[in-house]
Amino acid sequence: MEVATLPAIADVRAAADRIRPHVHVTPVITCRYFDRAVGAAVFFKCENLQKVGAFKSRGACNAVFSLSDERAAAGVATHSSGNHGQAVAFAAGLRGIPATVVMPRGTTEIKRRAVQGYGARTVESGPTLAEREGTTQRIADAGGAHVIHPYDDADVVAGQGTAALELLRQAGPLDALLAPIGGGGLTSGAVLAAGGGAGPSDGDAAPPPVVYAAEPKLADDAYESLRTGVRQPERPPHTVAEGLRTSLGDITFALVRGGVREILLVDEQEIIAATLAFVTRAKLLIEPSAGVAVAALLRYRERFAGSRVGVILTGGNVDLAALGALAGRIDG
Amino acid sequence: MEVATLPAIADVRAAADRIRPHVHVTPVITCRYFDRAVGAAVFFKCENLQKVGAFKSRGACNAVFSLSDERAAAGVATHSSGNHGQAVAFAAGLRGIPATVVMPRGTTEIKRRAVQGYGARTVESGPTLAEREGTTQRIADAGGAHVIHPYDDADVVAGQGTAALELLRQAGPLDALLAPIGGGGLTSGAVLAAGGGAGPSDGDAAPPPVVYAAEPKLADDAYESLRTGVRQPERPPHTVAEGLRTSLGDITFALVRGGVREILLVDEQEIIAATLAFVTRAKLLIEPSAGVAVAALLRYRERFAGSRVGVILTGGNVDLAALGALAGRIDG
Repeated sequence: MEVATLPAIADVRAAADRIRPHVHVTPVITCRYFDRAVGAAVFFKCENLQKVGAFKSRGACNAVFSLSDERAAAGVATHSSGNHGQAVAFAAGLRGIPATVVMPRGTTEIKRRAVQGYGARTVESGPTLAEREGTTQRIADAGGAHVIHPYDDADVVAGQGTAALELLRQAGPLDALLAPIGGGGLTSGAVLAAGGGAGPSDGDAAPPPVVYAAEPKLADDAYESLRTGVRQPERPPHTVAEGLRTSLGDITFALVRGGVREILLVDEQEIIAATLAFVTRAKLLIEPSAGVAVAALLRYRERFAGSRVGVILTGGNVDLAALGALAGRIDG
Repeated sequence: MEVATLPAIADVRAAADRIRPHVHVTPVITCRYFDRAVGAAVFFKCENLQKVGAFKSRGACNAVFSLSDERAAAGVATHSSGNHGQAVAFAAGLRGIPATVVMPRGTTEIKRRAVQGYGARTVESGPTLAEREGTTQRIADAGGAHVIHPYDDADVVAGQGTAALELLRQAGPLDALLAPIGGGGLTSGAVLAAGGGAGPSDGDAAPPPVVYAAEPKLADDAYESLRTGVRQPERPPHTVAEGLRTSLGDITFALVRGGVREILLVDEQEIIAATLAFVTRAKLLIEPSAGVAVAALLRYRERFAGSRVGVILTGGNVDLAALGALAGRIDG
């Protein structure tokens, strides 16, 4: 399948300017424990400290603030039970336009309330991807709302790319960039940012960082898509990394295939252990989806030894009781 | 009882110079959620991101690096099952001198290993304060080790005071300072730092911040000591805030009585809810002892409304399984 228009580095730079008034410049931290464990200089980009607690506010803000006033007036719609739903609700609230977030049956009350807390309307749908997308499209058709896909959207990808762009500016030249991959929006944005150069360009510019993506073995559709060269559909994924239970889209498959060196697979025990190790050592709350990148960093340390690595921590929206239960399982 | 020599602001300033090569300048963060909840500008001093995960490394480093080479050669000893034990082990390791940490029977293996991981020897004692102190003193008498009391020690108090000193420099003039109180080392240091002025002094210097301490109702010996004017002994305290299960010493009682406006009591439910709210909202891991200050901030918000408040978060050393269990209790 041909993809009409892929976003480019110029779109990421434009997104950075567009969303600057609305999102945080998140800190980049280092932690000696992980530097030693990996034998590398690791720079963690703390998108867990981002608005709505996840990088998703970057893409949502870029999409919402890219709309013309006329388009925006009809509002936006999306389907997501996770961070993207909150991010779209947040961005729409900032712009003062209506937002509808379709959430599958079984979504927890706390997640629904979080979206409503940002001023959006929530609508329940059936649990399958087709049902979620169908409900969203019907709402858009009826009221004219603009649909913001969670990742297969050029504006969303460009917005997510600002996380890597910012990291490269903050940390200086990096040999490698590592991000968790679900639908591929964050990784695609990192591919654009890595290829585009981040600092003032000159003749001695460092080579661009190699981009790696980290994926749960239980949701390895991106790995299989790259291995086979054919985009693999969503299978029912049961990984603890809720945010990564999605498969690539057309745009993200094209960018990931073109720019990612390797997809690094990690198993559930590694994800849990890495998430807990990070929270315990760095004292920063991250969600298991972010822990997937930390797990890959540790498991594939020979890829990174002796180099400067940037790791994007996707978010920090995690239920503490659930996290504690995982900790109890590991300790016991 | 007369206290011979109380530390003064000059000692806190000297401590800051002495420990600078060894400890972090921890960040100060703000969080809109808490600003809104309190109706104040709240500056959280993140000692959870300090070396060994707690402010205690400040006092321990100041005590260890204040010793003459001759005294230091015989090593140091202390009794603590918590952060102070790790901090003394850490500081002694930096100076390359032996350290012995006395821990009561029943201390978890994980805490013992943390101390040993910094290179210190651990010795088991009986559970009462008298037994712990007796064992420590015998070790000191036998080998000449210098005993570093967890809080009733001028060098330790001066070292802890650097946390508030740094906060005042980072956040600018504050109307109030709020710290949890257990043995009183941190609060005493804050009293010194608050009274001493932090910035370059001039004719228009802002008035010094009012110092408040936050204490669990279940361990309200400091509250009772101030109320009665007589230092109250340790009663068996069962608060979830492990770090605050101690009573004031001679030095800290004198400083707290002289410089603390009010001790703010909070109950266990408030401590747990505030700890979880902070971790969930700010995405930073804090221990329940730090949550005591957050709880007091929320419960006594009318004391702080409209003002600039500095809150010292003592540390982030908490078992995630235990924290998750607390979260389950609140949710359920």
